[in-house]
Parts: sequence; structure tokens; C-alpha cells
Amino acid sequence: MAMTTLGFIGLGIMGKPMASHLVHAGHTLHVYSRTPADVEQLTSQGALGCADSRAVAERADIVFIMVPDTPDVEQVLFDTNGVAAGLGKGKVVVDMSSISPVETKQFADRLADQGVDMLDAPVSGGQVGAEAATLTIMVGGKQTVFDKVRPYFALMGKNITLVGDNGAGQTAKVANQIIVALTIEAVGEALLFAAKAGADPARVREALLGGFAQSRILEVHGERMIQRAFEPGFRVRLHQKDLNLALTAARQLGLSLPHTATAQELFNAVAANGGGDLDHSALVMALERLAGHTVT
Amino acid sequence: MAMTTLGFIGLGIMGKPMASHLVHAGHTLHVYSRTPADVEQLTSQGALGCADSRAVAERADIVFIMVPDTPDVEQVLFDTNGVAAGLGKGKVVVDMSSISPVETKQFADRLADQGVDMLDAPVSGGQVGAEAATLTIMVGGKQTVFDKVRPYFALMGKNITLVGDNGAGQTAKVANQIIVALTIEAVGEALLFAAKAGADPARVREALLGGFAQSRILEVHGERMIQRAFEPGFRVRLHQKDLNLALTAARQLGLSLPHTATAQELFNAVAANGGGDLDHSALVMALERLAGHTVT
Repeated sequence: MAMTTLGFIGLGIMGKPMASHLVHAGHTLHVYSRTPADVEQLTSQGALGCADSRAVAERADIVFIMVPDTPDVEQVLFDTNGVAAGLGKGKVVVDMSSISPVETKQFADRLADQGVDMLDAPVSGGQVGAEAATLTIMVGGKQTVFDKVRPYFALMGKNITLVGDNGAGQTAKVANQIIVALTIEAVGEALLFAAKAGADPARVREALLGGFAQSRILEVHGERMIQRAFEPGFRVRLHQKDLNLALTAARQLGLSLPHTATAQELFNAVAANGGGDLDHSALVMALERLAGHTVT
Repeated sequence: MAMTTLGFIGLGIMGKPMASHLVHAGHTLHVYSRTPADVEQLTSQGALGCADSRAVAERADIVFIMVPDTPDVEQVLFDTNGVAAGLGKGKVVVDMSSISPVETKQFADRLADQGVDMLDAPVSGGQVGAEAATLTIMVGGKQTVFDKVRPYFALMGKNITLVGDNGAGQTAKVANQIIVALTIEAVGEALLFAAKAGADPARVREALLGGFAQSRILEVHGERMIQRAFEPGFRVRLHQKDLNLALTAARQLGLSLPHTATAQELFNAVAANGGGDLDHSALVMALERLAGHTVT
């Protein structure tokens, strides 16, 4: 059997370093991006440029996709010159974008009708994780397909988990973003309370790290709030997109997420005041605005 | 100088094991509790029973207090037969109850007028931590007073931090309880979302523990939600009391705590349905009620 040929569609801040890792490991990689300059950067490293997504799917056995949002994935997959038009039976589509878990299942069903397996494999870890190949990858799909793609995931990330069937990867990613946002909010309320009550938030944070309030967010984002270190990191506007996935899916599924809803409103308030490109720990600024008082 | 004589007022679920540790370390301990049977249990271990709080304060150099709430501390301190009536200059009062940070400062001021130093030293770790002498102790007051009392704290707990001046211990405890409640809520929304979207909450929890969503609460309380292990642990009604301290202080201080307020409402809903004595991870049951769906 010939060596597996790979494809990568979407060469933005995340996709570019991820695709680079595949090329540098010696794999044949066909690439496409709406931005020709991004394609050129990859071809200069040894990748093969394609005219559209369909061409990538015609040439590659496994097609990775990394684009911003649900409508972008739908377009890449099902447009006239999209992936689906170029696919043949036995090929695999791996969508690493962070998109709707509900629509992901529908996309997988449509591809299954063509005899094509899909994995949803959204990541966390951001640009830094993509460049360092240390992404956390949450995967939904069949075990056999996961086993086939796993060696390529291992070139892009470290903490790689098959969570369940199609959609389960996106579901885990949304669950992750809910917890991260709400824990940031929790740390923000607690440190602001401490400051307003006249205590030193830095010493309160220290005292709390040893107990049940411990979290990565209290460590990292708590420190950011105290140091006013709001350069991203993970941008407020990206977390707004992710909470929108959560709230849209909640409405579709029939589910109430009260704190996710108000956390989104607080992100909206930060963005309304010009903070959309700050790190998501800047959520505390919306609480500070409500209180007329800052953590430090 | 004679050996330091100790006093302990309040011998409930928490106070009894804490006082026991002091007696078993060989210290002379004068005790008082409203419940004579609790006093007898301590005197059978070698403590000396007193008729009221005033008598404890007359005999002891350092008086520890462990009672349920702010009005109880006020009564123990300032009633006719209270601690203040028996204190002399140079004595120390150590309030280990979890009460209002705002009123704590007022109590400390009133005692300072008598030449008496006070520490606020609330704990976390619950009955298990009290019995195992592994409590986290968050202290507010002067460094010199903290240094004097520290050896006795070390008999009752492990993670002992002077957070700041009077009130800072209570402030840290409230901040702790805010974070714990809101992180429980966050984990509840995320796991319920995962379940409703058709994923396995246990595998989602596993996948998330490696990333930024990591917390002690996701580990311990997330597992409780999945296993339906709602026996306490830390009871809903005690967390309601603590969030009431947060919300009351927020109003007094001029501060908005939106998620703390709705978390309290969710605890209220759990209690309204007979869950006041369940573990606080049962907060998820209020979310489940809203969704008409359970995590498992």
C-alpha cells in the first residue's frame, strides 16, 4: 500500500503551524487556504498547493480542516468546489476547528453517506500550543478511525483523547470553554471581593491555592488579574465565539446554562468597552466596572 | 513566665476535635459550650469545664472560639457573661468561626479598646480536616499575635497563612467559598451540557482534567456529580450560609457579585427540594431540574 497522503485546509494562526509539523515530519501534504500568501508559506516548506478544497480532497487520503467557525466548515465541506466533491470512499476528514457539536454530527452523517469517515478533533492550547505541538486534542468519532489518525495528532499535540462518537470532541471543547470562562468569572468575583474588603488579593490568592479553590485558572488568570497582564493569551472575542456555540447548542438541545449566559454578557461588556482583543482574564474588568473598584 | 493557658468556646462538630488536639498535646484547656454533654466529652479527655464564656476568658491567656455564625460570635464575646467581661490586657482572642468580615473588624476594634488582640482564623477542610488536624487556616491580624498563636494552629491544621490585618482571614474564607461554589456551578453546567449533547460526562471530565479547565472541584465534585455521591461532605445549607456572608458583605461594601447571587439561588432551589443536607456538589441538581435532564 502506498504511503498515506495528507491534506490541510485553513492555514491561519492555528492551521499554519499545525500543517508545518506534518510537513516537517516528512509527510506529503496538499494544502489550500483562501489566502494565497499562507499557501505560499507552506509550499516553501515543501507542501503542495491546491486550487481549492476539492483538489485537496481528490489528492489526500486524510484531509485536516482548521477554519474559524461552523459556517466556514460547512462551506469547506459542501460548497461546489468543497471537500465532499473531491472525496472517495475510504478517505477520512478530520475537522480540528471549534464549531457547533450539533451541526458537527450532521456533517458527519452527510459524509458517511459518501462512505467517508469524519473525526471532530477541536483543540485547546492556542497559538502557543499549536507552534509547540503541545495542543490538547479532544476527539469524536470511531475508535478505528481515531487509531488511523492518531500518529498525525501526535505531531500536533500531546494530550489526545477519544471522548466518544461524532460530536463528542466538539462537546468536550464546549464544556472546556464553559468551565474556563466560569472559573475566570469565579476568580474575578473572589479577588474583587477581597480587594474591596481591604485584603491583599495576591495574599488571598496564595492562601486559596492550597485548598478546594485551587485551579489552573486561579494560578494563571488570577495572577494576570493581579498583575493587570491582559495582553493575549486567548482573546475575549474568541471566548465570545465559544460561549455562543454553548448557548446556541443549549437552545437547540433544550438546556439552561445560567452562568454561561451571564458570563457571555460580561464578555460582551468587556468587548463593548474596547477589550475584545484582550486576554479572556479581562472578564474581571466587567465586574470591576460594576463595582467601581479594581482588583489592584 | 508561666505556661500559656488556653480556652476553647464552642464544641460542636468542628470545635470538639479541634479542642481535643490541644488537650492531647498536653495543654491546659478551659472549655465552655452551650451543650453540657459536649463539655463533658472534653473534660473526660482532661479539659477543665467552665460555667460560661466569661469564666473561660478569666482563666485562659488565649481564647479560641468556634461557633456557627456572626450573631453567635457577638454573643460569645459581648454578652453579660461573655468573653469580653472576663478578659484582661495582653490576652488574645482567636475566632475560628466563619463569619462576616465586616463585623469581624468591628469586634477586633472593640477588643482592642480593652487592650486585647484578636485574630480571625476561619478554616476550610470540614469535619474530616478538623479530625485529621489538616485544616486550612486563613488568618487576619498582627504578625506578632499570629506568631504567638501559630504553634496552636499547627496542632489543628496544616496550610496556615497570615493573609493580612483583622478581617483578612474572614475575607479570604469568603473568597474561597465564592470560588468553590461558582466552580461547582461551572462543572455542573459543563457536565450537564456534555450529557445533554450525548457525550459521556465521565470521559469529558477525564479529557478536561489535563487542560485549563483543571481544578480540585472538577476532580472531586465532578466525580461526585457523575457517581451521584451526594452524601456530605460539605452541606448545601452551610454553603448557603457562607454565600449569605458574601452577598451581605457585598451590599455593605458596595460590590456586585452576579454569579455568587445566582449560585445562592441555585442552592436555595436545591434546599427547597429537600437537599439542604446534601453535599454542595448537589448544586448540579438545580441545573438538572431546569434542564429536565440529569448528568448520568
